[in-house]
Amino acid sequence: MYLPPHFEETDPSQVYELIDTFPLAILVAQTEQGLVANHIPLMLQGKHELLGHLALNNDLHQLLPSGKEILAIFRGEDAYISPNWYPTKPIHHRHVPTWNYQVVHVYGTIHYQDDDKSKLAVVGKLTKKMEERTHGENAWRMADAPKDYLNAMLANIIAFRIEITRILGKSKVSQNRETVDLENVAKVLAERGSAHMAERMNQISETREEE
Amino acid sequence: MYLPPHFEETDPSQVYELIDTFPLAILVAQTEQGLVANHIPLMLQGKHELLGHLALNNDLHQLLPSGKEILAIFRGEDAYISPNWYPTKPIHHRHVPTWNYQVVHVYGTIHYQDDDKSKLAVVGKLTKKMEERTHGENAWRMADAPKDYLNAMLANIIAFRIEITRILGKSKVSQNRETVDLENVAKVLAERGSAHMAERMNQISETREEE
Repeated sequence: MYLPPHFEETDPSQVYELIDTFPLAILVAQTEQGLVANHIPLMLQGKHELLGHLALNNDLHQLLPSGKEILAIFRGEDAYISPNWYPTKPIHHRHVPTWNYQVVHVYGTIHYQDDDKSKLAVVGKLTKKMEERTHGENAWRMADAPKDYLNAMLANIIAFRIEITRILGKSKVSQNRETVDLENVAKVLAERGSAHMAERMNQISETREEE
Repeated sequence: MYLPPHFEETDPSQVYELIDTFPLAILVAQTEQGLVANHIPLMLQGKHELLGHLALNNDLHQLLPSGKEILAIFRGEDAYISPNWYPTKPIHHRHVPTWNYQVVHVYGTIHYQDDDKSKLAVVGKLTKKMEERTHGENAWRMADAPKDYLNAMLANIIAFRIEITRILGKSKVSQNRETVDLENVAKVLAERGSAHMAERMNQISETREEE
């Protein structure tokens, strides 16, 4: 990834937060059949592993053996940025359009886990996290489903963990613009539904004011 | 990509609409330095080409020569789907959580264009499209920026087109559930901010009713 220093997300907590908030990773691998990409929700286990599971019918686990490199891309909100949103535009007009986004690229090696305990653990953890976030005390629990149905579902998946070797974080969020422009773009993006990205932009703006 | 027939997006207009609505592609390539991914807005030119541009400092155009394979992934909205949202849940409880999403994977060969005319054409087309969508009659125009500034910006990019060889469309949007479940999940997702995906789900539901 093209990652100039001014767009690098150097705050590790921001990197982990993005993975947690936008869990549907784009899993990419180079295989015998060329580039293959799948969209799979993942979650961090500690700071050195990602956990996930595939449909057994997904041939990724046949095309890409355990131990091979995989890239997991997490992406937050993104938005077209118009020069019209920069308060300095009418002053000097030295602006062109761009695109803002926040992404995390995690490189690692994949390791499949075909035993029932691992499979149950990975779907259990993901379910617990997502249900608590979505429904709080009214969370759906795996025990709510009939045992035979759950067992049939588990028989149709394969679990995996990714041992992380490298993480790249990029927050391309107008921090290369004048502060008044950064702040107004954050305001516009919040109004247009990119609240998560706008919050990061406001944090950056506040840090500047403290300096 | 794992693409069972029931999740394949077989309506070409839906595939092109997704590319148009969510233009920030994840461009993935296998290079000498391994898997490389970049986030670049693209637009269709006709049905057989995608157009885009890179920062000249982005080493993709050095790592991946003209003529090589590239994968452009477009992704719409995505959402965790709770079993609690299926009206049939209290009846038979035969549900587990899943994730809904709409994606288009475009495979092709990349061809760089370093001349001023091509570069001006690609940024001009993208600007026109995005500004008209964002500001209508008040669209920012490239002529609004000083000529020397615009020329300096153009000198810092390289244009490219992708000759499309294959397109995969996947709409994993609860169409494998009972219609009452599909409809209620669409309602919940619309309320939770995934209006685009909900609309596709409602279209599928309406088609069923007509049959």
